[in-house]
Amino acid sequence: MKCMRCGREAVYLRPYSGEAYCRRHFVSSIESKVVRTIRRYRMLKRDDRIAVAVSGGKDSLTLLRILAKIERRFPEAKLYSLTVDEGIKGYREEALKLAARESESLGVPHRTVSFEELYGLTLDEAVSKAREKKLNLTACSICGVLRRKALNIAAKRIGATKLATAHNLDDEAQTLLVNILHGDLFRLVRTKPVTDRREGFIQRIKPLRMIPEREVALYAYFEGVDFQMEPCPYRGESLRSEAREFLNRLEEAHPGIKFTVVALWDSLRLKLEPTLTHLQLRRCKICGEPSRRELCSACQILSKLEALQPKTFK
Amino acid sequence: MKCMRCGREAVYLRPYSGEAYCRRHFVSSIESKVVRTIRRYRMLKRDDRIAVAVSGGKDSLTLLRILAKIERRFPEAKLYSLTVDEGIKGYREEALKLAARESESLGVPHRTVSFEELYGLTLDEAVSKAREKKLNLTACSICGVLRRKALNIAAKRIGATKLATAHNLDDEAQTLLVNILHGDLFRLVRTKPVTDRREGFIQRIKPLRMIPEREVALYAYFEGVDFQMEPCPYRGESLRSEAREFLNRLEEAHPGIKFTVVALWDSLRLKLEPTLTHLQLRRCKICGEPSRRELCSACQILSKLEALQPKTFK
Repeated sequence: MKCMRCGREAVYLRPYSGEAYCRRHFVSSIESKVVRTIRRYRMLKRDDRIAVAVSGGKDSLTLLRILAKIERRFPEAKLYSLTVDEGIKGYREEALKLAARESESLGVPHRTVSFEELYGLTLDEAVSKAREKKLNLTACSICGVLRRKALNIAAKRIGATKLATAHNLDDEAQTLLVNILHGDLFRLVRTKPVTDRREGFIQRIKPLRMIPEREVALYAYFEGVDFQMEPCPYRGESLRSEAREFLNRLEEAHPGIKFTVVALWDSLRLKLEPTLTHLQLRRCKICGEPSRRELCSACQILSKLEALQPKTFK
Repeated sequence: MKCMRCGREAVYLRPYSGEAYCRRHFVSSIESKVVRTIRRYRMLKRDDRIAVAVSGGKDSLTLLRILAKIERRFPEAKLYSLTVDEGIKGYREEALKLAARESESLGVPHRTVSFEELYGLTLDEAVSKAREKKLNLTACSICGVLRRKALNIAAKRIGATKLATAHNLDDEAQTLLVNILHGDLFRLVRTKPVTDRREGFIQRIKPLRMIPEREVALYAYFEGVDFQMEPCPYRGESLRSEAREFLNRLEEAHPGIKFTVVALWDSLRLKLEPTLTHLQLRRCKICGEPSRRELCSACQILSKLEALQPKTFK
């Protein structure tokens, strides 16, 4: 099997397209695809200040590596890496180190923000509170909401104009399926490659959404990205895990099915968007962050945990 | 566990609603649900001539049984049962007998139409032709198209105003998923509880679409419906089987998820429908049946099999 670019020995055959690549051309094919994704969805302007959400896992460190490469061609743009320290004992420490080290070697300023600093409690503490109170809140549902808000606050502190997250093709296909299984029409439409421009929210972009997870992993391996392998101890959203397994099994038999699903999502979204009424944003009456309801989701969760600290995040 | 209606010993607990029923009240709960489904989607008028597509399996014979019961209250309505003999040796014969016997005992006129009579070849012959010619046509894809046309032709011969098919909740949820996995936006919108009124097509209705498959089976068992158990020898559409397993596994952990999915489909369809351009129907230039293309799907398949017999079905 020969690389379709240079004729050298190929190391990877793309099952869904039949393209064969040597190591070097596989790497450049991924980078070009990220560039095409950014263009196609108009994710970035030449002079954006981009905050990259870096957890320390393979996807986010690969995204940072690729964006750092791309941004070298755009001197007006600025890149930052942002890590949220949720406070997960015995797990987060390594990720933080890896994120800091990779940022430093790329010359990208690295910022960390912690749940403890913002909310006055770590995720570990929030999870035990939820368990004590027998609340119907999983670790993932608490973390998702608090992390999203933390990233937005931290991105604003930096003065970022875009917040890049490392969701890959698999994540996107799973999210579509999970939204369908939850019957969640609103999220089906509102979860986008580039979020709307709205006061108080930094626009979020997903430059890896067309890269299958295994190709992200392969890129990280070829490029020597040093990432945390250990999965999060709290991991285990049942519906998402089921969707992941289902899609992976189907992808084996029908290569390209994840692309098909994500493309369908894109056309659904385009058609459905005009049918949804635009919700007015207000300010959360506890923290002052933008919110669709009186309390933002984070303050709702904190209030259920009886861990609210009325203060404004600026 | 007691029946929530009469306090007698319950024989069934509905996992998604917590309702417990004795045998008698389970049966009546299913019949009421079918009546509600018919009303909700305005499936029938008081004086419809209803052709029920009866394969001889549990779903279609149960549908016939329930509709026969319901229609006793509507003397202006007429009920017929329609069986398509695809020509599957060693399999179809028993189903035909069961369909005829059940129709007779219900006092419902029974009509049979065969692939052989309409198309000049049995499904067995069509499948071997497709294999000989190495065509990319599965037995299910040939059968689906030819059966749909056969039912429409037979329903027109009877003078039916509605054609009822026995798709249950599981079928519907699977179909949504399969359409998504195929990226088929058109079918996502066009597959409906009641098809549009269009020249040359009898409107199709699905009165069992809110009844889970296991409850159809339980109804058939309680009511002594005698159906064919043996699965079709050609069965095996991989994507649909995968979707079936996936949804069944999820339903165990999240009772009611199939309803959620079908409800989402209903709202998606309502929102998407106005965005699709209405396709003009023409007449298939071979058989004269209505079609979106120059040749209808059935004549396209027959022409690939070199089994076209130019004649008009009236």
